[in-house]
Amino acid sequence: MGKELLRSFDALIKQAGYRNRSEAIRDLIRERLVQQEWTLTDRVTVGTITLVYSHDIHELTEVLTTLQHKYHKQIISTMHIHLDRHNCLEVLVVKGRGKEVKKIADRLLSTKGVKHGKLTTTTTGRRLS
Amino acid sequence: MGKELLRSFDALIKQAGYRNRSEAIRDLIRERLVQQEWTLTDRVTVGTITLVYSHDIHELTEVLTTLQHKYHKQIISTMHIHLDRHNCLEVLVVKGRGKEVKKIADRLLSTKGVKHGKLTTTTTGRRLS
Amino acid sequence: MGKELLRSFDALIKQAGYRNRSEAIRDLIRERLVQQEWTLTDRVTVGTITLVYSHDIHELTEVLTTLQHKYHKQIISTMHIHLDRHNCLEVLVVKGRGKEVKKIADRLLSTKGVKHGKLTTTTTGRRLS
Amino acid sequence: MGKELLRSFDALIKQAGYRNRSEAIRDLIRERLVQQEWTLTDRVTVGTITLVYSHDIHELTEVLTTLQHKYHKQIISTMHIHLDRHNCLEVLVVKGRGKEVKKIADRLLSTKGVKHGKLTTTTTGRRLS
Repeated sequence: MGKELLRSFDALIKQAGYRNRSEAIRDLIRERLVQQEWTLTDRVTVGTITLVYSHDIHELTEVLTTLQHKYHKQIISTMHIHLDRHNCLEVLVVKGRGKEVKKIADRLLSTKGVKHGKLTTTTTGRRLS
Repeated sequence: MGKELLRSFDALIKQAGYRNRSEAIRDLIRERLVQQEWTLTDRVTVGTITLVYSHDIHELTEVLTTLQHKYHKQIISTMHIHLDRHNCLEVLVVKGRGKEVKKIADRLLSTKGVKHGKLTTTTTGRRLS
Repeated sequence: MGKELLRSFDALIKQAGYRNRSEAIRDLIRERLVQQEWTLTDRVTVGTITLVYSHDIHELTEVLTTLQHKYHKQIISTMHIHLDRHNCLEVLVVKGRGKEVKKIADRLLSTKGVKHGKLTTTTTGRRLS
Repeated sequence: MGKELLRSFDALIKQAGYRNRSEAIRDLIRERLVQQEWTLTDRVTVGTITLVYSHDIHELTEVLTTLQHKYHKQIISTMHIHLDRHNCLEVLVVKGRGKEVKKIADRLLSTKGVKHGKLTTTTTGRRLS
């Protein structure tokens, strides 16, 4: 691991209040595993998918819309913000089995022309009362 | 005016609790005038534009998105519901001078392929406290 | 009907391109009847409900949220715009039998403290292809 | 680090196609640093905040709404999904200096009664063309 990376990580660790690197790394791994577990489940879950793209790219808007309609039973609603004349931000709320939600996110995020995208895994709230 | 139309109108009048036709017509005219006035004003207002269309129509999605980005300063946010595999419902919240909001609505609603659309005129809430 | 009202109506008629008052009134009546018919139907329809209110009014936000959750099966999604420090704009997309959608709108619009509200009747797009 | 945790992590590493643990940990650290950097910046950024909560909790809805209105200049739009009779999902799109967006997220996520919440850091798309 590079010196520069370690230095930055140590600064972050200090700021976040961890006592040592192991503790911080353990937390990162745990978080990653929870996320992984979520995306393999057959249980009904909720996720939000965030996409940033330029609608100037030929046919990108159409490709993304067609893809979303394919999963219209899982995608509850999409909010679209016109960031500027070119850039779009879309946030989709998706409800379905973890596997399905993950698959929908993967297909959208891997679409050519999407500048940035993330799946945020959350919950139906039922098991957390 | 046709007999059938009058009969239906009389039934509606009765149900709505109007005493006579003149009163009901006066209300329809007033409502229409308020709406008209709204769309001619230079004052900052808020409107919601509802659109239903099929994303299957070639390039319609792209045309509507490009049009919306042209007015990205007025269009605060757009909510898109995937009604089924083909039909889209979009609701736009638009803030700007009455005239501008009206113009944006006219351009979107008159786009070829839009099945149904409406501008709902509302308020910033400031003058109604 | 007052002179002032008639004068304004005549100006509007001219601008809109109607040939005479009867024609314009007929159109207003027709539009009103279509809307009425919509709200009596058992057929599945789609509507958007626009609400403007101040969240400063004690418990209004809670009342509206509780009401909306009561109809969570019909209300697909709600978009909330923070117009300023006090005023809220909410747009709800509602899918259900016409009667139900009308009832939900009536209950929300008649809630004390709501400054302005409107039900916009639209379509699932299925019968308009 | 516990055996169980390491075993799960090794499975994930294999599935994700990493060659060894170091490589995977390096990626986790990098991702975390990018996120950290984002939230310290004075540059204008965009984030989405996802919240799950129950509107049954006394005054929670009001507290969250008041908080959001305080930052109405940064919060562009909020989408509210009525997950069921009790649970709410809210997704906020926030545009502002990284620090501000982080602060808004922290205040919302730490509100008592919020079951789950996450800040997703994204971009205005301008530097990624």
